[in-house]
Amino acid sequence: MSQRTVFFVSDQTGVTAETMGHSLLTQFEGLTFRTVTLPFVASVTKAAEARARINAASEADGLQAIVFSTLIQDDLRVEVKAANAVFLDFFDAFLGPLEAALGVASSHAAGRAHGMANAEVYAARINATNFALANDDGGHTRDYDSADVILVGVSRSGKTPTCLYMALQYGIHAANYPLTEDDLESLRLPSALASHRARLFGLTIEPDRLQQIRNERRPDSRYSSAQQVAFEVRQAEALFHRLAIPYLDTTHCSVEEIGSRIVHSAGIHRRLHP
Amino acid sequence: MSQRTVFFVSDQTGVTAETMGHSLLTQFEGLTFRTVTLPFVASVTKAAEARARINAASEADGLQAIVFSTLIQDDLRVEVKAANAVFLDFFDAFLGPLEAALGVASSHAAGRAHGMANAEVYAARINATNFALANDDGGHTRDYDSADVILVGVSRSGKTPTCLYMALQYGIHAANYPLTEDDLESLRLPSALASHRARLFGLTIEPDRLQQIRNERRPDSRYSSAQQVAFEVRQAEALFHRLAIPYLDTTHCSVEEIGSRIVHSAGIHRRLHP
Repeated sequence: MSQRTVFFVSDQTGVTAETMGHSLLTQFEGLTFRTVTLPFVASVTKAAEARARINAASEADGLQAIVFSTLIQDDLRVEVKAANAVFLDFFDAFLGPLEAALGVASSHAAGRAHGMANAEVYAARINATNFALANDDGGHTRDYDSADVILVGVSRSGKTPTCLYMALQYGIHAANYPLTEDDLESLRLPSALASHRARLFGLTIEPDRLQQIRNERRPDSRYSSAQQVAFEVRQAEALFHRLAIPYLDTTHCSVEEIGSRIVHSAGIHRRLHP
Repeated sequence: MSQRTVFFVSDQTGVTAETMGHSLLTQFEGLTFRTVTLPFVASVTKAAEARARINAASEADGLQAIVFSTLIQDDLRVEVKAANAVFLDFFDAFLGPLEAALGVASSHAAGRAHGMANAEVYAARINATNFALANDDGGHTRDYDSADVILVGVSRSGKTPTCLYMALQYGIHAANYPLTEDDLESLRLPSALASHRARLFGLTIEPDRLQQIRNERRPDSRYSSAQQVAFEVRQAEALFHRLAIPYLDTTHCSVEEIGSRIVHSAGIHRRLHP
């Protein structure tokens, strides 16, 4: 059976169109699609090229392509919409109702300035990324006074990617500190953390999954043994309970979900807002 | 004048609802809004709480709140939609037309498995993040054979956040290497890069902006002087031209835009797909 082609068309990066299309398509179980992203479609010439590519795919597949689009300029949208395809445009769907509700016309202009000025957003993300890098893995603890959150957990529980994601997405200054065997045996916080109790957030993970992750890194080592992994996870969770540190099981969570749950459950002040 | 409240309501992280709402609201210049994200609204109880919060805001503001929602389950959507607000739901708008086009009913189930299995996506992102961290700032060059791209540029041109973003968003293995004064004076590639020409991608930035960024870091230093910054940028661009290294000016770009432009213009194979 022929496979249908899905296009993500945008005058910007295409990330929003991809996210939107992906969450809709996953609602159709069993169907598979070929996906093509066409970003930076910001001129009529580019839009005409996009239309030609879409038409070619519909013809080759013998099935109409599906187009998820986030084209804000009317002339570009009209051009791409003329393709032989199922056309679903984000602004088409929502801008009209929103204009009616707000009682004003929108500007229909691409790449609008964000709520925060771009240079400000840039600085906030760079500063947060630098903070996460400098304060990764307990290497550096002097900046903990200015941390928005300090993640604690055993090795490979997901601390580093979560800190980086929170930096890029929310501008949050997130440090992380690995719990060592000494900490886990004594069920005490390392001294670097003792005065920062209110900023701590724990990550845990199911032992089976942790063993699998560690085994990819150092196969057949003590580090990845069932016994060691079970011990570390049990003790880490005991420590979180004992000190009333809020924590989250990351086993079945994406990095986005871990980040979002921490921000909302710990009530952390975001430095970047939608 | 009273300010209107905008809610982003989701059964997941709320990031898609925030992205969608943000790009729509920035089309209305001059209007400002108070924003509230309500993530993980995944039960009827939670949906009823969301409805109550929305109603309270509409009443307090004396203006109907605006709700951007990505609620996939019908019962939750019905509950939140009953609030006194302008309700714009992503699935409401698109799932019907898509079902018609595909000729099948969708599952209307929250948190569907992704195209790639979750553990696979997790591993791809973690591996890519670890790669970016290990190969940041030229510290380690042995893995360059397995790099998907190696960013080169002067200090503070945006290399590190871009590598991390590409790792998290696309699963790309991105290294970065800073061009030093020696490289810039001789207009030659450092030896670690010489055998990896095809993987190189340059970043540049306007001297004024670079000076501003460096000045925040080391005020009144040679590093942040107008003369030094102008020299480095001029030489870096000359090197890119001389060796036909594709490059991008990051001055007016968000990290997302830099990442997306590199991936698409250099034709890099993404390890994570929408």
